[in-house]
Amino acid sequence: MGDESIFEERCLRAKKMMGLRGVDALCLTPSPDMYYLTGFWTNPSERMTLCIIPRLGEPLIVTSRLYESQVKATSWIENVEVWSERLRQHVQLKNILRRLRLLTGKLAVPERIWMVHYKALRDSAPKATFTSTSRILSPMRILKSDLEVKLMERAAKLADDALEKVMCEVKEGVREFELAARVEYFMRMEGSEGAPFETIVASGPNSALPHYGCGSRTIFGGDPVTLDIGATYGRYCSDMTRTLIVGRVEPRLEEVYRTVYRAHQEALEAIKPGVEVEAIDLAARRVIGDCGYGEYFIHRSGHGVGLDIHEPPYIQVGSHVRLRAGMVFTVEPGIYIPGMFGVRIEDVVVATGDGYRLLTKHPRDLTCV
Amino acid sequence: MGDESIFEERCLRAKKMMGLRGVDALCLTPSPDMYYLTGFWTNPSERMTLCIIPRLGEPLIVTSRLYESQVKATSWIENVEVWSERLRQHVQLKNILRRLRLLTGKLAVPERIWMVHYKALRDSAPKATFTSTSRILSPMRILKSDLEVKLMERAAKLADDALEKVMCEVKEGVREFELAARVEYFMRMEGSEGAPFETIVASGPNSALPHYGCGSRTIFGGDPVTLDIGATYGRYCSDMTRTLIVGRVEPRLEEVYRTVYRAHQEALEAIKPGVEVEAIDLAARRVIGDCGYGEYFIHRSGHGVGLDIHEPPYIQVGSHVRLRAGMVFTVEPGIYIPGMFGVRIEDVVVATGDGYRLLTKHPRDLTCV
Repeated sequence: MGDESIFEERCLRAKKMMGLRGVDALCLTPSPDMYYLTGFWTNPSERMTLCIIPRLGEPLIVTSRLYESQVKATSWIENVEVWSERLRQHVQLKNILRRLRLLTGKLAVPERIWMVHYKALRDSAPKATFTSTSRILSPMRILKSDLEVKLMERAAKLADDALEKVMCEVKEGVREFELAARVEYFMRMEGSEGAPFETIVASGPNSALPHYGCGSRTIFGGDPVTLDIGATYGRYCSDMTRTLIVGRVEPRLEEVYRTVYRAHQEALEAIKPGVEVEAIDLAARRVIGDCGYGEYFIHRSGHGVGLDIHEPPYIQVGSHVRLRAGMVFTVEPGIYIPGMFGVRIEDVVVATGDGYRLLTKHPRDLTCV
Repeated sequence: MGDESIFEERCLRAKKMMGLRGVDALCLTPSPDMYYLTGFWTNPSERMTLCIIPRLGEPLIVTSRLYESQVKATSWIENVEVWSERLRQHVQLKNILRRLRLLTGKLAVPERIWMVHYKALRDSAPKATFTSTSRILSPMRILKSDLEVKLMERAAKLADDALEKVMCEVKEGVREFELAARVEYFMRMEGSEGAPFETIVASGPNSALPHYGCGSRTIFGGDPVTLDIGATYGRYCSDMTRTLIVGRVEPRLEEVYRTVYRAHQEALEAIKPGVEVEAIDLAARRVIGDCGYGEYFIHRSGHGVGLDIHEPPYIQVGSHVRLRAGMVFTVEPGIYIPGMFGVRIEDVVVATGDGYRLLTKHPRDLTCV
């Protein structure tokens, strides 16, 4: 992102929210939450990196020597400490929390923090109370700024372009994992920082498994091939799915495709400011149910995307979040006939002041390659 | 892996260990622990998948409809339930734990389980006690079977071969991320299931940051380029690092390289059955310290590898694990001069009855490309 003031400004907003929620500090291990507020990105590791953002006072990052320079180079946070090798981490953690007067405080941790790190915090401050960062940070992270949408648009374009390039290679005799390799390569060469989830290339009957991944199956004529791919840009994720048909399409597969296509279209049309997000799911589910395929639509219609590949809002029945401009999420109805085939169409969209804008631009029409 | 009996047999061994440790059930969310015992692999998700392995009685997997067929297709476990959409998950979880008579039991969860899932379990069984699976499963997972070593050797070869192929492309004018793209592509095309960590291509001064990742820096003549790459095969990881020199090597860089090389060699020679693993770290540290670079060796000398990219044994001072045949770990001393350059050499080795065997075969000599 470059500009450190963005992260610092988010921190100020988070502190205000902490005041409202009675939270004394955020205790973040490596996670999108940590990146969102500090600019420092790494994956969680058994070597604990901990960022403490007290409501009052300066934030602090404690890490291993290995990461010291990197934290200083990428984050706006000036207080960077290194775990001593002489004292047990447990004792150091307690000393730090005592110094910051947090031993009896209300501390918020990410929902996805590893249990072992959560336990280290709890054991160091047995009188503290713990809550999740989500009530502080979700309301912020769920609304993307113009800059965030730009990064996500770029991530979506990386996936669009890679799909465009790989289409001519989807043919008889190719193996699933070869297509995955090609798609990932195309995205990486144009600047993707990596795949935010296991690339899916599911051909023939494998396409009936929504999260199959990819294997060594060879593609045959008539196969549907579901490609579910994503890129990362500026740490923001994209996520798109197309089911292509190799050669001629069977009538049943065509019928299913057209049903999913219409469900996708109806879902898009349900995207309006102020509606509850379950309305989008219901719109897709209605089309598929009316065509008799309801029992084969075995997942929700979408999920928020951002620094996490899955984040709020979740587009499912029972989700009463009201749509606001700046929410970014997938629309991805699918039908899966066990042992036979599956079809899914997935785009990333951003909600706007009067509807939506597609970040994924690739055409959705039935495509025989 | 194919053969389901391997997973079932591991389960039987785990149950014996549970008896010794007084653990009533393992409660596993998606993780290497879950794969190790069930054969089902997926990444953790906000949609909870839970495998319960009671000490007495049959194991059970509860998942979302999305994964039902996939669990049945890949795991030996026959009891597969799907979360109902009508009842709250919390209530269902409680009902399941009650049915299995685990509400007041001692339950073991993976150390890296997400807090939100750990909390769901604790809230459903407030009278249960919780411990980590590591005391049950670490002693099993730390000793690799011949089959596991074979898979890891294959994963190591994928990285070896990719490095060999990419070497001729490491030259002036190329960008770091382009090399990362190429290396990942080569590994994927030969069967790697994906990179088990962010591929590192750190050139020039970036090589002084051990976990830099890769960026858009263009490589210049005289640069050191550190490539830290890994493949996955049969879900087992590999991990290797080489620092190549582009063009002619500067005298100081050469001196550092030779120091790291000797440290690596000494570390290898310290690998003997029955020694404490810290001896390996001390051997590397002695060489680097004697040459006056001690303060620039800012990480441990290695880590276990397996289904996790970092797992026990950790090769560091204070680690008193005794080496046994079948332990697989990295040996990876490094020297990092801030703002200037860094050098690291990393291989995966398996401890044997009389020493060690390298799984990484790529030469370690100073290589100018």
